[in-house]
Amino acid sequence: MSQTKCSKCSKTVEANNTRKIDGHTVCLNCLYDAVEPISFRPIGFVANDKRRRAVGFGTTGGDISEIRLLPYMQHFMKGIEDESRLLILWHIHQARDIKTVFRRGWDGKRVGPFASRTPDRLTPIGVTEVELLRVEGATLVVRGLDAVDGTPVLDIKVAVSSLKKRKDSP
Amino acid sequence: MSQTKCSKCSKTVEANNTRKIDGHTVCLNCLYDAVEPISFRPIGFVANDKRRRAVGFGTTGGDISEIRLLPYMQHFMKGIEDESRLLILWHIHQARDIKTVFRRGWDGKRVGPFASRTPDRLTPIGVTEVELLRVEGATLVVRGLDAVDGTPVLDIKVAVSSLKKRKDSP
Repeated sequence: MSQTKCSKCSKTVEANNTRKIDGHTVCLNCLYDAVEPISFRPIGFVANDKRRRAVGFGTTGGDISEIRLLPYMQHFMKGIEDESRLLILWHIHQARDIKTVFRRGWDGKRVGPFASRTPDRLTPIGVTEVELLRVEGATLVVRGLDAVDGTPVLDIKVAVSSLKKRKDSP
Repeated sequence: MSQTKCSKCSKTVEANNTRKIDGHTVCLNCLYDAVEPISFRPIGFVANDKRRRAVGFGTTGGDISEIRLLPYMQHFMKGIEDESRLLILWHIHQARDIKTVFRRGWDGKRVGPFASRTPDRLTPIGVTEVELLRVEGATLVVRGLDAVDGTPVLDIKVAVSSLKKRKDSP
């Protein structure tokens, strides 16, 4: 395991237990005090033709993705085919170094990660509302997912906009 | 560590490595195949007067919460005070046993967890859009967070509705 030095507390720590922030190495103790990690497991993976993140905002590639859930997940899907919009939680597994201030892709305003949707953030979880096109067994075909091919999917929820639409309909 | 038996593969496993689904114990191997866990750390905690989840939909208590971020997090907050709406990702630390089918709180329809917003889900991450009332140092005062007192907060993003509002304004 490679060792490195925290730029804040000057302690020598495992490189795995650090983040790069504005080009400086900061250890997890300085970032999070003594707060313990929480583990989650992916429920499936994204398949699409997005091979890499775009330089600026969003990704390259087409707008249709498959979300291929693990076999057991079919137990939890009842009623999903009736919904028009879903919220997808995914692991930003290609997250890069964090900047404390940058130009936001949406409007060019200079902001920090918490005032943005940047994938380069302390907690690399993406949240995207997508349109559900169809369900094929444990696979969901969706439009509008800004995650690249191979991205681990953490959770699927009905979108509030889908629920509101249902309630408004006769 | 207490041991228990998986109702699916019949193997004896540590109770920690199982979930209760429809009252049956299922081991993480059966649920997730060989997929590895991903760890995240909380960036802060919720403080409000919601002491417990309501029996049905939502929580008891008032609608104003403080999100008290860890000290280091102030580095990532630039521009957040200008936003009207934020997306809060939080750890559903009081999640209970999972049911594969139940009546959804919103409309009473019988659905599974992926077609709902139930807190009792395989990946206990809550996503709530809130109104930002004010920022006091590393503390955000928000309206509309359906997480109880003491809930670990995982991430804060600007809500898409807040961005759209900015773009539409002159």
